[in-house]
Amino acid sequence: MRVYADNAATTKMSRTAIDAMLPYLETHYGNPSSLYSIGQEAAEALLAARETVAGCLGCEPREITFTSGGSEADNQAIMTAAAIGARNGKKHIISTAFEHHAVLHTLNKLARQGYDITLLDVHENGIVTPEQVAEAIREDTCLVTIMYANNEIGSIQPIPEIGKVCREKGVLFHTDAVQAAGHLAIDVKAQNIDMLSLSGHKFHGPKGVGALYCRKGIPLTNLIEGGAQERGKRAGTENVAGIVSMAAALKEACDNLDETAPRVAAMRDRLIDGLLQIPHSVLNGDRTSRLPGNVNICFEGIEGESLLLMLDDEGVCASSGSACTSGSLDPSHVLLAIGRPHEIAHGSLRLSLCDTNTDEEIDHILEVVPKVVTHLRGFSPVWRDLESGKREHLI
Amino acid sequence: MRVYADNAATTKMSRTAIDAMLPYLETHYGNPSSLYSIGQEAAEALLAARETVAGCLGCEPREITFTSGGSEADNQAIMTAAAIGARNGKKHIISTAFEHHAVLHTLNKLARQGYDITLLDVHENGIVTPEQVAEAIREDTCLVTIMYANNEIGSIQPIPEIGKVCREKGVLFHTDAVQAAGHLAIDVKAQNIDMLSLSGHKFHGPKGVGALYCRKGIPLTNLIEGGAQERGKRAGTENVAGIVSMAAALKEACDNLDETAPRVAAMRDRLIDGLLQIPHSVLNGDRTSRLPGNVNICFEGIEGESLLLMLDDEGVCASSGSACTSGSLDPSHVLLAIGRPHEIAHGSLRLSLCDTNTDEEIDHILEVVPKVVTHLRGFSPVWRDLESGKREHLI
Repeated sequence: MRVYADNAATTKMSRTAIDAMLPYLETHYGNPSSLYSIGQEAAEALLAARETVAGCLGCEPREITFTSGGSEADNQAIMTAAAIGARNGKKHIISTAFEHHAVLHTLNKLARQGYDITLLDVHENGIVTPEQVAEAIREDTCLVTIMYANNEIGSIQPIPEIGKVCREKGVLFHTDAVQAAGHLAIDVKAQNIDMLSLSGHKFHGPKGVGALYCRKGIPLTNLIEGGAQERGKRAGTENVAGIVSMAAALKEACDNLDETAPRVAAMRDRLIDGLLQIPHSVLNGDRTSRLPGNVNICFEGIEGESLLLMLDDEGVCASSGSACTSGSLDPSHVLLAIGRPHEIAHGSLRLSLCDTNTDEEIDHILEVVPKVVTHLRGFSPVWRDLESGKREHLI
Repeated sequence: MRVYADNAATTKMSRTAIDAMLPYLETHYGNPSSLYSIGQEAAEALLAARETVAGCLGCEPREITFTSGGSEADNQAIMTAAAIGARNGKKHIISTAFEHHAVLHTLNKLARQGYDITLLDVHENGIVTPEQVAEAIREDTCLVTIMYANNEIGSIQPIPEIGKVCREKGVLFHTDAVQAAGHLAIDVKAQNIDMLSLSGHKFHGPKGVGALYCRKGIPLTNLIEGGAQERGKRAGTENVAGIVSMAAALKEACDNLDETAPRVAAMRDRLIDGLLQIPHSVLNGDRTSRLPGNVNICFEGIEGESLLLMLDDEGVCASSGSACTSGSLDPSHVLLAIGRPHEIAHGSLRLSLCDTNTDEEIDHILEVVPKVVTHLRGFSPVWRDLESGKREHLI
């Protein structure tokens, strides 16, 4: 049995998303900027996709800018707020220590340009409070950027409340919703969100396409200069096939959310309960305010990478944290941010489920993970020290 | 009969490109950053695509960075050279007046940041000479960026010679090869090119994917910050399906170039000769140093947009210039750059052919264009004035 349980890294495209894409690869290949009929077919498809995405987020079509993915959308949102801030003499930005690197590295760049960055503490449960945001906002704050739900530990932030604080204080609020879109109900207007990023391949759409919602009246800064596409705010011939496909995938995910989310959450809960039976293990992230598909557990005394490789041999595709930082030997910045010590953070396992996972697959994971953890601990000098009392258990 | 003759705007994907893409939409959906087998399949596909693209350009795989398209690649190349220049106190950039807007608008942004931009004259034939470049290079020049072949008038620049001048003077040389890649033989090493941009959908590959060649040793500046993809130089989960498909399309185009280029050029020449039979018409761009598929002709006394709409009714998809600027009422900046007066520049027709166009299609175009031009002139007050002698003919 092969179980794909790394849906936070990427998802398999749905049949709906593939079928939506194919005609735009094969037949309707026109450039949407062209005046003739083949071009206008493409332009109409773009418009329909924009309406669909806007419908899923509760905004107007003209508030959607299509990008090459979530990272680009995050970069553009932050650079937009920074540019507006600079024009008003406001160069303070509030974020958290456990954002995705698309946010953190952009903030690092701004810090080098003289911006002052405050990274809020996310507490052990991986949640920031609106009160923390309110306290951190200053006269010169131009942006609050806090992710909708964390990509590693799945904790869902109190977005509407944070948005309300920002709106009351007149500060722009951006949220990286790459892990949330298609998995949680989003309504940017009701939730007081000014800018929001999403990525197609996180909800069974294609890789290489994303979107940025930007409330009308906020002048976007171009990241990519050139042609007049996307109302002059994002140059480059539009990835029509990818955009149409992403829109179809998002609509499918949102339409089915009421049915899929509880079902996925039930699998998640069974997995969490089962895996926490393993001694000296701890759940990362909040137990209830949590993405339906996210499981993230640290096992003391083992290395996450060995665990992943052995799970792969057992047919389970999982990750130790963000795919975007794999290859790095540093422990997850997210786990450090919630206060896990280095030696614990190294032994993390993220399993991220989606609506196509099955109960049989959960059974399989629950069978192999304890076996593999026990096996690895048998070889672990750290575990020997822990068991012999030379080291103290941390969890 | 429907004739697609706007291949400079975008091309229909080849069967090869679609077939290369499908498995990465349907089956090999892993994230290339993931350690398990499904992820590593994707990583291997990326590596193979990188080798293929490098092979087509005559460079090393690690010198290729995949982007979301030609515009992004242009932006990143120019911002890279500008950043290197700034570190060395060199803030002068040389380009031409008829570059694509992805280049010109990026240069405008840099001008606002204090860079000094020199735009070289391109002469009536749309060609810049190496001598002009040599004369323009100053002590503080950090970049020469000149397109390989113009997107509107098809004129091919003396790239190896310009590259040689730049190398002798120690100045970085970037070329926007979006119209050239897959249509002309490129060898970045032999042609003294430091950075080169290309776009998949211009050679029967997919939209939304491109590449930047950057000679090793030149430190790329990130346009998109975030994860460690593309050696940390371009964040965002890779568009694996798009990249694999683009590589397949580029290889197919390059492998067949010896056969396709002369055949396409022969159709082009028949089209040019036939259309120049129309009185008061003039070819834009050099007659010989010209992209195999490019035809660009101005017809006095008519509006390009009306011409396009009528041609669409007759089954011919064409353009008046760049698709990226359609919707703008300004005449083409390219035609102005080669010295065409406003009233002539407004009446331009670009037909861009590819290897799947046929002689029968050329016959059809040669039948309908003269008919439509005559028809439109019949309604044109300008043409009446020209014919009655109230205005003087300019061509």
